[in-house]
Amino acid sequence: MAYELPAGDPEALRRRIEAGPQNIWRYAPLLPVPADVADKPGLNPGFTKLVKADNLARELGVTGGLYVKDDSGNPTHSFKDRVVAIAVEAARAFGFTTLSCSSTGNLAGAVGAAAARAGFKSCVFIPHDLEAGKVVMAAVYGGDLVGIEGTYDDVNRFCSELIGDPLGEGWGFVNVNLRPYYGEGSKTLAYEICEQLGWRLPDQIVVPIASGSQLTKIDKGLKELIALGLVEDRPYKIFGAQAEGCSPVSRAFKDGHEVVRPVKPDTIAKSLAIGNPADGPYVLDIARRTGGAVEDVTDEEIVDAIRLLARTEGIFAETAGGVTVGVTRKLVESGLLDPSLTTVVLNTGDGLKTLDAVAAGPTVTIRPSLDAFRAAGL
Amino acid sequence: MAYELPAGDPEALRRRIEAGPQNIWRYAPLLPVPADVADKPGLNPGFTKLVKADNLARELGVTGGLYVKDDSGNPTHSFKDRVVAIAVEAARAFGFTTLSCSSTGNLAGAVGAAAARAGFKSCVFIPHDLEAGKVVMAAVYGGDLVGIEGTYDDVNRFCSELIGDPLGEGWGFVNVNLRPYYGEGSKTLAYEICEQLGWRLPDQIVVPIASGSQLTKIDKGLKELIALGLVEDRPYKIFGAQAEGCSPVSRAFKDGHEVVRPVKPDTIAKSLAIGNPADGPYVLDIARRTGGAVEDVTDEEIVDAIRLLARTEGIFAETAGGVTVGVTRKLVESGLLDPSLTTVVLNTGDGLKTLDAVAAGPTVTIRPSLDAFRAAGL
Repeated sequence: MAYELPAGDPEALRRRIEAGPQNIWRYAPLLPVPADVADKPGLNPGFTKLVKADNLARELGVTGGLYVKDDSGNPTHSFKDRVVAIAVEAARAFGFTTLSCSSTGNLAGAVGAAAARAGFKSCVFIPHDLEAGKVVMAAVYGGDLVGIEGTYDDVNRFCSELIGDPLGEGWGFVNVNLRPYYGEGSKTLAYEICEQLGWRLPDQIVVPIASGSQLTKIDKGLKELIALGLVEDRPYKIFGAQAEGCSPVSRAFKDGHEVVRPVKPDTIAKSLAIGNPADGPYVLDIARRTGGAVEDVTDEEIVDAIRLLARTEGIFAETAGGVTVGVTRKLVESGLLDPSLTTVVLNTGDGLKTLDAVAAGPTVTIRPSLDAFRAAGL
Repeated sequence: MAYELPAGDPEALRRRIEAGPQNIWRYAPLLPVPADVADKPGLNPGFTKLVKADNLARELGVTGGLYVKDDSGNPTHSFKDRVVAIAVEAARAFGFTTLSCSSTGNLAGAVGAAAARAGFKSCVFIPHDLEAGKVVMAAVYGGDLVGIEGTYDDVNRFCSELIGDPLGEGWGFVNVNLRPYYGEGSKTLAYEICEQLGWRLPDQIVVPIASGSQLTKIDKGLKELIALGLVEDRPYKIFGAQAEGCSPVSRAFKDGHEVVRPVKPDTIAKSLAIGNPADGPYVLDIARRTGGAVEDVTDEEIVDAIRLLARTEGIFAETAGGVTVGVTRKLVESGLLDPSLTTVVLNTGDGLKTLDAVAAGPTVTIRPSLDAFRAAGL
């Protein structure tokens, strides 16, 4: 599984990528996967839509072009399918027989589904109080699902112990012992955004922060495309987005600190509720180095942003998507994000998995008669 | 919006399609839409995955190649995005300002989302007792959502009255006064299946029946590809799938009748719960003419089939997908479906919208300790 970036003619590489499958395997030469990866049984995530969000842009006052990278279009409707796909290939290479993970929900579903199709057993660990949609989706693929009485950080600690124990032998924890491979999957978000912009870097990109890994890998992916000559080398800014109820990185950014002080999460954005984000310091470094920022929004602002994205672009985002859209709005208002530049906002998950967050229902319920409808006054 | 199928060189048409966008607009020359349709603000559904389902094939004993056409990958996660996309173009052409529909849920979400992005008002009508996921998804895009105290058939009748009333002036009901356009969207399922099979007809295809429209339009789409010379002309069989609790077409098929006697639906497959299917007689004709059949499965068999598809292929289907997979299993067992032939099964919706159907949860819930995990005995 060792690999290095291909040297040589950028034009040839670009043509090779463009002729590839409509999923992340078009970038196989840039990933730690075998050359025949596209032929193996997998969920084949990626190459999700980059939506030109003109209606949202008008509402936010962004004039330089606003795009939503909508990863709810992945097989289990979150960006986690990308990282799991790479981890599955590593698990095959290492001869693991069981796929596992600690998860705030999205990853559990992605691992369960990928394991089912690829022929692995699975056993995934989640906090016991997740959203119903995520619990069902984690359980339906037939593997074992273990609820842990505790927070995500407790689940994570438990999994680290399990890896060191004979009980966990032969197990590939996608986000622990397979993490170096897993993480590389997030680079594909950067690759796709640039390719879909016509092999061009975005000026600004707004990324949600959970552990912080995704943001660091997006930066890595952009740098790789520059190094390979696939895009022109020019400045880009990376912005991080958190929920106020779990904003240790945002706090450190605003306070000018280089370390991140852990917090106890309390937010509806459960997929971002990692109180002790492993890659926090790297996120701070990237945001500062590129001229970006890290910002956070309240739960109320998250719900407002979910509704805003839905009514402007017809995209129903998970709470994490509410965080990035809400933070984008806040960054425009504060002047930290330049509205005259090309901006990409990530939506990493699906509103159907966090239904409880938006209390949406019928405007009115009536008998099936014209009189009743007239009386409703719509 | 009048159009006719393009005459001339099939090779040129095929190349033009293959060079088109990765959504239904690649087939714009075969659809009643303007030539620049891909540039207008829309959800751009379609070109969803055709999954080679080898694990499921082994379980069912299908040896000739089994594929799942997975329309849960559409923007609002059902095939309805296809039909709505065509109706939206017709609504633009007719100058309608409000998009509307009667819906069992999936269509409501598709109309709400498409209206939001395309700049229409929307007002959609649903039975008051739908699944939570479908209700939230219908409401979140900011249009009006009206719950009707009654069945889908009541909702439909009400909408027909509304169209004749001044209250409904300027309203485009996608599945009533825009139905001739709307229906054409289902043809794209047939186009994509053939293109994804390498411009080849499937031997057998299993389609869910609600109103029956989708099945008739898939037949139409296959015939068009033959007429255009895009696929070789050879026999194919179309099978219809219903839930036992709403199986008027299956009943008529088995009884050898040419008319369909309406029923009062009682099934968990609410998206198929149309007791008086308008296209029932045409479905019977197509199933008989092509050598197919119409079959139904119980609610228990639907849930079993949802779980079977999930644990074999990592696809979490809506109840309607449980119906087609369950019916496929039944048809193989009864010998009506030939397991040695290439078979395509449609999954038209997403399991996240019918969560209550599958009571899936954690295998076990424990404290975060190795001792507790060991005691759980997994």
